[in-house]
Amino acid sequence: MTVEIDETHDPKRRSIVDAANRPDAEFPIQNLPLGVFSTADDPAPRIGIAIGDQVFDLGKASAGSDRFGEATRAALQAPVLNPLFSLGRKALRELRHIATEMLDERTSGSLVQQHASELLVPLEHCALHLPTKVSNYTDFYAGIYHARAAGALLTPENPLPANYKWVPIAYHGRASSVQVGQGMVRRPLGQRPPAAAGEPPGFGPCERLDFELEMGFYLARGNRLGSPIRIGEAAEQIAGFSLLNDWSARDIQRWEMYPLGPFLSKSFATSVAPWIVTTDALAPFRVPALPRPEGDPRPLDYLSDEMDQTCGGLDVHLQVLLSTETMRRSNEPAVEILTSNARYLYWTPAQMIAHHTINGCNLQSGDLIGTGTISGPSPAELSSMLEFTNGGSKPVVLPNGEQRGFLQDGDEITFRGRCHRSGFVSIGFGSCVGRILPSNSSSAAER
Amino acid sequence: MTVEIDETHDPKRRSIVDAANRPDAEFPIQNLPLGVFSTADDPAPRIGIAIGDQVFDLGKASAGSDRFGEATRAALQAPVLNPLFSLGRKALRELRHIATEMLDERTSGSLVQQHASELLVPLEHCALHLPTKVSNYTDFYAGIYHARAAGALLTPENPLPANYKWVPIAYHGRASSVQVGQGMVRRPLGQRPPAAAGEPPGFGPCERLDFELEMGFYLARGNRLGSPIRIGEAAEQIAGFSLLNDWSARDIQRWEMYPLGPFLSKSFATSVAPWIVTTDALAPFRVPALPRPEGDPRPLDYLSDEMDQTCGGLDVHLQVLLSTETMRRSNEPAVEILTSNARYLYWTPAQMIAHHTINGCNLQSGDLIGTGTISGPSPAELSSMLEFTNGGSKPVVLPNGEQRGFLQDGDEITFRGRCHRSGFVSIGFGSCVGRILPSNSSSAAER
Repeated sequence: MTVEIDETHDPKRRSIVDAANRPDAEFPIQNLPLGVFSTADDPAPRIGIAIGDQVFDLGKASAGSDRFGEATRAALQAPVLNPLFSLGRKALRELRHIATEMLDERTSGSLVQQHASELLVPLEHCALHLPTKVSNYTDFYAGIYHARAAGALLTPENPLPANYKWVPIAYHGRASSVQVGQGMVRRPLGQRPPAAAGEPPGFGPCERLDFELEMGFYLARGNRLGSPIRIGEAAEQIAGFSLLNDWSARDIQRWEMYPLGPFLSKSFATSVAPWIVTTDALAPFRVPALPRPEGDPRPLDYLSDEMDQTCGGLDVHLQVLLSTETMRRSNEPAVEILTSNARYLYWTPAQMIAHHTINGCNLQSGDLIGTGTISGPSPAELSSMLEFTNGGSKPVVLPNGEQRGFLQDGDEITFRGRCHRSGFVSIGFGSCVGRILPSNSSSAAER
Repeated sequence: MTVEIDETHDPKRRSIVDAANRPDAEFPIQNLPLGVFSTADDPAPRIGIAIGDQVFDLGKASAGSDRFGEATRAALQAPVLNPLFSLGRKALRELRHIATEMLDERTSGSLVQQHASELLVPLEHCALHLPTKVSNYTDFYAGIYHARAAGALLTPENPLPANYKWVPIAYHGRASSVQVGQGMVRRPLGQRPPAAAGEPPGFGPCERLDFELEMGFYLARGNRLGSPIRIGEAAEQIAGFSLLNDWSARDIQRWEMYPLGPFLSKSFATSVAPWIVTTDALAPFRVPALPRPEGDPRPLDYLSDEMDQTCGGLDVHLQVLLSTETMRRSNEPAVEILTSNARYLYWTPAQMIAHHTINGCNLQSGDLIGTGTISGPSPAELSSMLEFTNGGSKPVVLPNGEQRGFLQDGDEITFRGRCHRSGFVSIGFGSCVGRILPSNSSSAAER
């Protein structure tokens, strides 16, 4: 892998959009995350870049400009990012350089300034859509602190599987129910574990509804069936990163998952943040892979790459906020319930890609891969309700006195992510939000 | 569910295509399976119906005919069946009636006869393609004889899971590597189980490569996220059925699958037969669901439907043939190694759909669902090498003296399926074929 820090990361660079220059801006000119948006006036979904409190309409900007190469210009007319990602990382880097120049305050009399009213749309007026057509969604299990903590609760007989330090464990997720994290999530119905062995299972709305704090990443070009992606080439296949909430129904999961893994306990919804922070924007925030403790095995050759060990990790501060219906009614702000960091992954994204394709499996442009829940080593960094409340037995107590073991109807979960490094401008991931709707229990009663 | 036997099933009906009228024809006029084909002269993939030894070009036939409704005509111009399936079962039934009339020998001077050279293409000149764009692929585990036999070998500590008779167990499969069963399957590389606990895993080409004999079915309209499909409406959501080979790497599977299920052991390839036999064509071959033995629990309400118990099963005789490189070199025909029947499923397709959506998960037009391996109660009906050879310990002995515990490079596996019922014309499923290519071991050595 290569990590290039270049003039697009220059901290002195400022944008023509004022809000992008504030120290707390999530979307300064050094970020330029990609997404898909529409407006009431123009309801056709199109590709944009978040800049300060605005969205830069890349579809429109590129249609009227010869700065973009022909293939990029064509890809930017699509209503999803897949065609752009399929052009590969080089095209994304070129696009980043062009957009940086177009949005830089030193580019006086620029196209964007001339046509600001058309090309810059206030973020608050935008509807944000799923950024890619997700043809395939895979979820890994690379957070070792999560695997240990959740394993102790879900499968106490075997908390950390024997294969864990050899195999980047993953399962295929449901692509159709991946949604942009800006909306509602309906509590699922399903079978719940029997009260005792030999008893019939329960049935009804999930009683242990949970979130899982993850990062997601999107494939650039992908590979042909039968042609694995080598570890040294894997990072070049990642177009960008995003926040991902792997909503989980713990009671349904506990009962259904043996022996073929989680199914309905996950497939009711997976939320991703609307903005994809490109791999290039993240270059300053690469860190070494999580050190393997003394005694842990060296990864097999197909998972080993020196550069990946040196800078295959990501330093992203992650935050989970909760807001209840009661809190919103009394205008209380959402409260932070836990924090974590993307650096706590036992396997790097490049290792995940090398493993995913070693059998010849073909990854496709715009495919979504989740890292697995990113818990950290401290109790304040356990990144699901299951872990954080010890299976619901130690509820979170909120400032207004409410308690939560698992999520109740009306609860809203927000993920945020932020990168900081001395000498660089801090960048953010936007937010991934979901509010719990009651289950369709009327139809349940009819069943 | 409704099962309609109508004039399209009339056994006295004969086709203008002679080969369709032979008693052993797989594709008589009573069948009319849908697929996607192209020819050297016209390489654009288009929708067709198999009839005798010909393919009826539905794309061309409908473009020039006002017999088809507007929506159907538009859908028949697509290079995949998803738009047609999204019109629902009623449109498929109408299409069946129109095609029956167009291909009936009593329809003298018909459009098809006038333009036979354009509208009927010899099957042997056709390339057959994946019939739908598979956006989502789910694989069930509904063959109880398989679950018992494979469970005893893969997880001897727990052969039939405690949830088996309550939960139609399934996992999400890999959509990108679903391919039409007319080609090659490359032996996957991967991690193999350690020789002993605590030892490092092995790495290299899979040494226990296997097939799994399944049926697949394709979704018609599907459902919106959050709106389950009720069991009584589920059969109406199945456009048609096909043969499916869930290729499996047993050594990779054994090591990777705990706790999140099979992943790389399956995602290198899944093959489907090119022809989709519509639910309407199968009406005469419906049978009661597999009787539940005394003492087995009654399914929960959301999985219970009287009509489904009466006629939700399918009587399809299934056959697995093996041909080795040595056999082909001496012109020996493929040999039948086992047979089974689709009626041996513990859960019906309608129960699978009702379960899949009970949590609100959205199924989409053209989605593929596998039933799971369909083994039968007798040793000759164990429908994978794993089961049939008792984990490789009792190899199959072929007529030429060759032996097989698992599949070797050059082995070709063919699935066939056939429905018979007294008073009706027998119909077939075509074949689902795959030949094993050696792994990319040169690149393995470099790793």
